[in-house]
Amino acid sequence: MILLRRELGDVLREQRQHQGRTLREVSASAAVSLGYLSEVERGEKEASSELLGSICTALGLPLSAVLSQVSMRVAETEALTPPVTLPVAAPSSIASAA
Amino acid sequence: MILLRRELGDVLREQRQHQGRTLREVSASAAVSLGYLSEVERGEKEASSELLGSICTALGLPLSAVLSQVSMRVAETEALTPPVTLPVAAPSSIASAA
Repeated sequence: MILLRRELGDVLREQRQHQGRTLREVSASAAVSLGYLSEVERGEKEASSELLGSICTALGLPLSAVLSQVSMRVAETEALTPPVTLPVAAPSSIASAA
Repeated sequence: MILLRRELGDVLREQRQHQGRTLREVSASAAVSLGYLSEVERGEKEASSELLGSICTALGLPLSAVLSQVSMRVAETEALTPPVTLPVAAPSSIASAA
């Protein structure tokens, strides 16, 4: 399953690094702990909507722009991972395997 | 502040209603409690990434499509709510007001 927090974390980290800013700078600006921001970027923690808003503000990015990037990333991943369909053995093949 | 969970909840509810399905049907299909889905739709609870994935699957929608809709909604709301800039009183005006 594609997890929103992983894709979101990747986008937030990429944007921060693209701006040449450290975790320390952005976490201080967003008033979140450095450890929390780091976990969010690594997709290990769900960001609350309030803290996601603060992080976007700290990065100077509209929430819509971040979500748009996440949506595009998820679409790319979806295209690479077709839905899993488990093969169903026909009764005869089960019988012959027994 | 624009909150992701509110916009996400609105999109999920609109999609469910557009499909003519009940909270009961979708919550059962997504294996989440009816109360939880209702709270998510009302923007009162943050959906974990795993449960968001289950809800999207239950609705037959790719996560990317849901996020894209949320992104567009957020962009519309951002356009209507310019950033707040508090007026800063000059020292002289403070002095004259005293």
